[in-house]
Amino acid sequence: MSLKAEIIGIGTELLLGQIVNTNARDISERLSSLGIDVLYHTAVGDNPGRIDAVFRTALQRSDLIITTGGLGPTLDDLTKERVAEVLGLPLELRAAELETLQSRFTRRGIEMPPNNIKQAMFPSGSLVIPNHNGTAPGVIVELGRQSIVILPGPPREIRPMLEETVLPYLARKAGDSPAVIKSRVLKLCGIGESAAEEVIRDILLAQSNPTIAPLAGSEMTFRITAKAGNAAAAREMIDAMEAKVRARLGKYIYGTDSDTLEEVVGRLLREKNLTLGLAESCTGGLIASRITAIAGCSDYFLSGVVSYSNTAKVEVLRVPATIIADYGAVSSETAKAMAHGIRQVSGAAIGLSVTGIAGPGGATPTKPLGLVYFGLATPENLQAEAHQFSGDRTTVRTRAAHQALVLLWNYLQK
Amino acid sequence: MSLKAEIIGIGTELLLGQIVNTNARDISERLSSLGIDVLYHTAVGDNPGRIDAVFRTALQRSDLIITTGGLGPTLDDLTKERVAEVLGLPLELRAAELETLQSRFTRRGIEMPPNNIKQAMFPSGSLVIPNHNGTAPGVIVELGRQSIVILPGPPREIRPMLEETVLPYLARKAGDSPAVIKSRVLKLCGIGESAAEEVIRDILLAQSNPTIAPLAGSEMTFRITAKAGNAAAAREMIDAMEAKVRARLGKYIYGTDSDTLEEVVGRLLREKNLTLGLAESCTGGLIASRITAIAGCSDYFLSGVVSYSNTAKVEVLRVPATIIADYGAVSSETAKAMAHGIRQVSGAAIGLSVTGIAGPGGATPTKPLGLVYFGLATPENLQAEAHQFSGDRTTVRTRAAHQALVLLWNYLQK
Repeated sequence: MSLKAEIIGIGTELLLGQIVNTNARDISERLSSLGIDVLYHTAVGDNPGRIDAVFRTALQRSDLIITTGGLGPTLDDLTKERVAEVLGLPLELRAAELETLQSRFTRRGIEMPPNNIKQAMFPSGSLVIPNHNGTAPGVIVELGRQSIVILPGPPREIRPMLEETVLPYLARKAGDSPAVIKSRVLKLCGIGESAAEEVIRDILLAQSNPTIAPLAGSEMTFRITAKAGNAAAAREMIDAMEAKVRARLGKYIYGTDSDTLEEVVGRLLREKNLTLGLAESCTGGLIASRITAIAGCSDYFLSGVVSYSNTAKVEVLRVPATIIADYGAVSSETAKAMAHGIRQVSGAAIGLSVTGIAGPGGATPTKPLGLVYFGLATPENLQAEAHQFSGDRTTVRTRAAHQALVLLWNYLQK
Repeated sequence: MSLKAEIIGIGTELLLGQIVNTNARDISERLSSLGIDVLYHTAVGDNPGRIDAVFRTALQRSDLIITTGGLGPTLDDLTKERVAEVLGLPLELRAAELETLQSRFTRRGIEMPPNNIKQAMFPSGSLVIPNHNGTAPGVIVELGRQSIVILPGPPREIRPMLEETVLPYLARKAGDSPAVIKSRVLKLCGIGESAAEEVIRDILLAQSNPTIAPLAGSEMTFRITAKAGNAAAAREMIDAMEAKVRARLGKYIYGTDSDTLEEVVGRLLREKNLTLGLAESCTGGLIASRITAIAGCSDYFLSGVVSYSNTAKVEVLRVPATIIADYGAVSSETAKAMAHGIRQVSGAAIGLSVTGIAGPGGATPTKPLGLVYFGLATPENLQAEAHQFSGDRTTVRTRAAHQALVLLWNYLQK
């Protein structure tokens, strides 16, 4: 039987609408990948009576309760105190944790304020969840078949705590007894979500361990999660699943985990000792801003031109005025001339160009909204292709910028 | 006594971690501005028993219950059915609503699927909340001193429904009886949150109606909310409060409501019949991508150059090589030469340039990480200024791009 879980966010800032509860989403997504059913999310303020009431309700209905927030050093931070009170467990000072905490402050050359001592207090009999990115360790309290997992509030502290301690603990609790849980995200480009799922439908239906699941978000991604006796075994299981998926979708998989398309493209350019110049019209600098988001991009990125006016296309990019006059600024011919032009002007090995109709104005009977031409000038070739995007101005621009990187990645793959 | 409210998000996609519950945040922020205390957020899946249980708990503790989601046409969409069942109210078909719904489909040239009929069914005695952006109207059920407000899931449908119907209703319920509630957001740039709050601290402390509150987010904003007998009176109250704030912070207020800095700058450029050219180094196209996010920007934006390499600075922007050699690529002199260069190359009235050290590499003892120079070449003048930003590469780049727009806005104000 699968575990019934609920997630409780603690903090008045949630109820005032000052922050969004992304922790509930992140934790839910990871629990789902372990086959644990999350049945409720709750958020409650820094109020002892209401925290107690919410916690008592949770104890009546859930096997697993995960709280986030309320572990700071101030009087408003109540989570451990309320959980200990409701469960009738005394809070005790853990000398080892106090030492870890003090040495964090020492390393930063600050004396630890006395308030922080409470971050080394834990409910009697509980387990400590190390936190390498903040002063508040987490807590696991076991209560017969029930578990209470207490986490701090900041997402960047929670994520490694989940990965290193909480998920392996929960997998054991969910009935497996693996020593480790590892996961890997495969990132795809140039294919839509439903098309990608269709191609590996039988794999998605037959999964057990490792699991594989599409992830929500602006990109197409799959997360593979394996439970095993040790890290090497988990990695082998993930490798095997990845190989099965790559056999069908390999040409769309540009990277894994925290890879971004601009990073992978940059890595390939550097490896192949190639340089890049960009000529953007409707994407207006979006491609350049993604390429230059990568530290060290000056090794392969020389320059970009945002040629919004036809004059800029002609004077900066040296697109022949007759091409624009004969075929229009949004055309395969202009895209090619822009790519060729930026290759010459920048002195780069590769010139990449985009010209299209992002909307809302500018469409004609033969050139609809969302029509975008891409040009690629390489040492071997000068080519162009058209794509038709749907959506508003922002969506068309974003998708066109992504598609330009996909084209470049495809070229660099060869 | 203030109303006690809670918000219930209904939908299994929330519990699977497929979407973030931004509705709870948005609604909480708006209720806070009316002085209504939100005490709980809950999310529950598309499960009749659990929806009923969550709803019964809410009825025991809250004066106001707002639900989001579960109003679609499918069998999974259960909200109205469960609320009606728990309250013992029959669901009845409203002929007028059915007609509105059918005409929505007719306008789109589609026959209404029979499933959608349930979107015209309402608990007996309830009020309808019109939804101009989707097929699911909302519902208000009054139950003695308690109110239940039922809203659809999509944020873009919820926002106008709040503004037009729900907030005025709640303000009346909260003890006032204003016919209308209006709000206006003031948007600031060039000043930090705590500095801005400090300047109007006495106004913030003395507020009652209209209220004024800083809003969470990446920009500094204040929301003014007025309750009044009619729209004109509310607007007058907001105008008066805005005038008070402008008297102190006017030089930082670039716009209101949905205005963006790039939109306001664009409007000023068009009004003054001026054109713009951009030369970006460390911001790598971020400024151009913001400027070109605005439809019709081709009226005033001519071209941009992302001059990442020194060669591009020299060859495309015609920065004298000696300036880079003598002062470095990150210097006031290079920023000025880039601004001057892009003004010449693009033929624009105004040349704006950015060159800096976004990190993580590239810092020197005299030029630390986050040091950014901005150049502005106008028909009257050629000037540069330096700013020191903190944060990682992405943060420095984003802040530098924003600061460039602030400089341009300041110039256009004069």
